[in-house]
Amino acid sequence: MIPVKGYAAQSPTTDLAPWDFQRRDVGPHDVQFDILFCGVCHSDLHQIKNDWFPGIFPMVPGHEIVGRVIKVGSHVKNFKVGDLAGTGCMVDSCRECENCKRDLQQYCLKGNSQTYNGLEQDKKTPTYGGYSKTIVVNEDFVLHLSEKLDLAATAPLLCAGITTYSPLRHWKVGKGHKLAVLGLGGLGHMGVKFGVAFGAEVTVLSTSPAKEKDAKRLGAHHFLLTSDAAQVKAARGRFDFILDTVSAEHDINMYMSMLRTDGAHICVGVPPKPTPIHPFAIIDGRKSLTGSGIGGIKETQEMLDFCADHNIVSDIELIDIKDITKAYARMLKGDVRYRFVIDIATLK
Amino acid sequence: MIPVKGYAAQSPTTDLAPWDFQRRDVGPHDVQFDILFCGVCHSDLHQIKNDWFPGIFPMVPGHEIVGRVIKVGSHVKNFKVGDLAGTGCMVDSCRECENCKRDLQQYCLKGNSQTYNGLEQDKKTPTYGGYSKTIVVNEDFVLHLSEKLDLAATAPLLCAGITTYSPLRHWKVGKGHKLAVLGLGGLGHMGVKFGVAFGAEVTVLSTSPAKEKDAKRLGAHHFLLTSDAAQVKAARGRFDFILDTVSAEHDINMYMSMLRTDGAHICVGVPPKPTPIHPFAIIDGRKSLTGSGIGGIKETQEMLDFCADHNIVSDIELIDIKDITKAYARMLKGDVRYRFVIDIATLK
Repeated sequence: MIPVKGYAAQSPTTDLAPWDFQRRDVGPHDVQFDILFCGVCHSDLHQIKNDWFPGIFPMVPGHEIVGRVIKVGSHVKNFKVGDLAGTGCMVDSCRECENCKRDLQQYCLKGNSQTYNGLEQDKKTPTYGGYSKTIVVNEDFVLHLSEKLDLAATAPLLCAGITTYSPLRHWKVGKGHKLAVLGLGGLGHMGVKFGVAFGAEVTVLSTSPAKEKDAKRLGAHHFLLTSDAAQVKAARGRFDFILDTVSAEHDINMYMSMLRTDGAHICVGVPPKPTPIHPFAIIDGRKSLTGSGIGGIKETQEMLDFCADHNIVSDIELIDIKDITKAYARMLKGDVRYRFVIDIATLK
Repeated sequence: MIPVKGYAAQSPTTDLAPWDFQRRDVGPHDVQFDILFCGVCHSDLHQIKNDWFPGIFPMVPGHEIVGRVIKVGSHVKNFKVGDLAGTGCMVDSCRECENCKRDLQQYCLKGNSQTYNGLEQDKKTPTYGGYSKTIVVNEDFVLHLSEKLDLAATAPLLCAGITTYSPLRHWKVGKGHKLAVLGLGGLGHMGVKFGVAFGAEVTVLSTSPAKEKDAKRLGAHHFLLTSDAAQVKAARGRFDFILDTVSAEHDINMYMSMLRTDGAHICVGVPPKPTPIHPFAIIDGRKSLTGSGIGGIKETQEMLDFCADHNIVSDIELIDIKDITKAYARMLKGDVRYRFVIDIATLK
């Protein structure tokens, strides 16, 4: 076993703190890479606080993981020591179900292995995430990263990036479409970048007037202040798609009023409570409320390659791991532009 | 003006009773037809009780209207005296918006004219429905009916028929698909007939074991008792589509668990209250909650022609108009197989 230093929550009521644990030795199909940077996702906080479901403790969060390969198993073909490597929200899946066979491991019917707060495919061994010094992952769940991009700013692509890229691709959002991105945070700012790159006319929907300047800087064509009822009313029936990145409670019916006939409201944020949907919000205009979770491994690699080709990374603020609890508090207030990334060199 | 005998609710707290009113004279583009039968839709009751929104009273319900033409305007090209004729949920629309131009008058952006409890396109003149002896409708909103089919049993096609036909066509439901029809009432029994006719493998979902025999008689391949948690659990991820015809409150999240990845839950019933949707119900499996309202005029004619070709009508119970309040009470209990139709000859 490999001893590893990390940061863990010992229970849903304790803050993150240093914790020593072990990872498996590098097997024939495994890649070990030293973690250089790890993004901070809103879901990290949801999970250590048991907001969604009872977690597995101690919990080492982190699923936006990038670093450099230090060891590869005897059968590993696609990675060598010294390569950049990344891992996102999954470290394994059943590989046999119809979804795995369609490269949709995120919807593995037997349950994939989440990178942390999950179990390996033996359904016994807990997984530990990227708030740690090194990680061992089956090569099929390790992604190649470009040397051309800023590595720290690449980390959030592994979750915030694929979570917004995948639905925009699935619903074929592009030229001729009016796309609204609801919420300008870690996910939202990536949604804007991808929407613009795909050729859509992008509007940022936000309750915060302070976000307008940044929305435009990120490439958005329009900004709509959703706390202004007159602006919302004037936008009735305007958008083909709304990419909803908000993970706090919000009234989806109001947003859906801004969709065109046959429009889709796509949820990628996960609010803590069910949202009441009025039947006429979907029936009048044959609208869809839908959702999407991260993306498959093949599509994640495609997204990373697209980012390298189009020079797309996240806007980040690099932090010391000892400041993680403060960072969570700022994240809750929306006080981050637009993703905290932990410099794992600060973990000693 | 043309004097007409009908049945009206004078207010949301009074029962239907005879009422004399007037319709406009037959204009150059109008068709007048004497009403022979009118179907009883659950929405008739919702509307006279103000369940959805404040109604226009006195209200003459009825939007499943069939009869024979007695007069046509000077410019009418497609109907002549003696023809069978039908009218569904709309009697006009703006004809200019992008939805009207796409034959989606049901989603007219300026607001179509509902057959009753609505206003003509002058936005002033109230409309009165089919619980009456005769009606005057612009020929563009009058449908041709086949002489081959039982006329009384054809009436419900104008709402229950098109409401289920249109979404099944829109989402291209057919061979190779597993379709669940939720609720076996006026809409649901038509959903089964169309689903089977389109080649899908059809399962009826119902809380009532008594419906199993009828489900099979109507052509359904399977029956699933949704009050049995074991049957629901065993059906996890089974269906490509759920056609939800229920207009009472129900837990859509439970039903969506039975959808496959990328499956769609299509609401055509309108429950009185918003339904709480859990974010994971749509995100896990990229599922859609969507809805559909009736159908455009062109598609309604296509549906009626399809029914004539495939010998499809509704299963009905013919009633005397004086028994309408008793019929509503039975409808609320689900005690109708599967649509009440008023014999307008009983209105004197």
